[in-house]
Amino acid sequence: MQGSPQPTTSPAAYSATDRTVPTRAAHKASYDREVVHAILDEGYVCHLGFVRDGAPVVLPTLYARVGETLYVHGSTGSRPLRMAGQADPGLPVCLTVTHVDGLVLARSAFHHSINYRSVVVHGVAHDVTDPQEKLAVLDALVDHVVPGRAADARPANKRELAATAVLRLHLDEVSAKTRTGGVNDEPEDLALPHWAGVVPLRKGYDTPLPEPDLAPGTGVPDYLAAR
Amino acid sequence: MQGSPQPTTSPAAYSATDRTVPTRAAHKASYDREVVHAILDEGYVCHLGFVRDGAPVVLPTLYARVGETLYVHGSTGSRPLRMAGQADPGLPVCLTVTHVDGLVLARSAFHHSINYRSVVVHGVAHDVTDPQEKLAVLDALVDHVVPGRAADARPANKRELAATAVLRLHLDEVSAKTRTGGVNDEPEDLALPHWAGVVPLRKGYDTPLPEPDLAPGTGVPDYLAAR
Repeated sequence: MQGSPQPTTSPAAYSATDRTVPTRAAHKASYDREVVHAILDEGYVCHLGFVRDGAPVVLPTLYARVGETLYVHGSTGSRPLRMAGQADPGLPVCLTVTHVDGLVLARSAFHHSINYRSVVVHGVAHDVTDPQEKLAVLDALVDHVVPGRAADARPANKRELAATAVLRLHLDEVSAKTRTGGVNDEPEDLALPHWAGVVPLRKGYDTPLPEPDLAPGTGVPDYLAAR
Repeated sequence: MQGSPQPTTSPAAYSATDRTVPTRAAHKASYDREVVHAILDEGYVCHLGFVRDGAPVVLPTLYARVGETLYVHGSTGSRPLRMAGQADPGLPVCLTVTHVDGLVLARSAFHHSINYRSVVVHGVAHDVTDPQEKLAVLDALVDHVVPGRAADARPANKRELAATAVLRLHLDEVSAKTRTGGVNDEPEDLALPHWAGVVPLRKGYDTPLPEPDLAPGTGVPDYLAAR
């Protein structure tokens, strides 16, 4: 309504669009912001898709979420980042994040599956040019991969900021898709003598490997030891 | 040369093209078939990019390699698979596989990175319609995720084969990209009191969780126990 105040909080869910309503398995889809944010925040590598000379290109890249904005970054020489900088009014992209949680082994080959959680974001990416926003984004990217790390590293200088391109993508046309739980076999297959169940993926990190030339007395920081 | 016999073996490397030569970090790129095959064979989830109504779409999907062909599969109702079935002469796609191996923590925020191995395949995907090829592909997909499993599951029947769409993509325009090793800090940063090094990702699987209603006496098969 004209003259109405803007809502001060986002609605709890993203609006579904033709692109984000799946053609199948609609029960696996979610538009809930908390679900979407949790999947995005657990990862740090996305697959960024864009169109170049009419053909699709998909590249892995690092990302971070700040509120309702996703940032991806790379060298100013990389193709999507150059293209977005040159594109007006921005570069249409599709950014996808996927976590694989387990292998689902059914008694039938057909019902084999994987447990996963994914988020697909459609939108237009824009080049971030403001040095202050760029600096904040670089910190967010470092902290997104290793929370607490940005404060324990030498910040980017002017030369490094100039060599880094950052893209901004608003979370607007977004959906999550998840598969959890056990096996969905056909009733007539249940008596077959094949093992069925879920093989969970092991997640986490191994012991950090220090560089051989650390400054004397530099131990593993708490934010790493706690992982 | 006209009249020359075709080579009976593939050359050891894929030919580089404008799309597969990186604009930066060229030392990280490889066109070696063995390198590409090893990265593809270690994974089973790819990110498949295609163009819909002029905009990019990137979806996670399962894949398997058979020689110089990649197969992806899904429901006949899923968008890329329907589009490829309708497209003539096929659907331009970009298929990307990424393995994250470790977090690279540098003394400077700018030199933070990740160790990874990725493969990007450009090409045109075609619908597989021959039932025999489809059946072989489904076995390959199951065995790609869990080697040895296809022989220990009830094969797909006619109805299930009809409900499954399979895409074929030839490995022709392909490149791999890898980052390995330690930190690349600036010489003047080496004395800074920040921990630097690599945090390796833990890989593997946890104990398989059997369905509660397995046929009596069905134990964990050897091909799972050995993982």
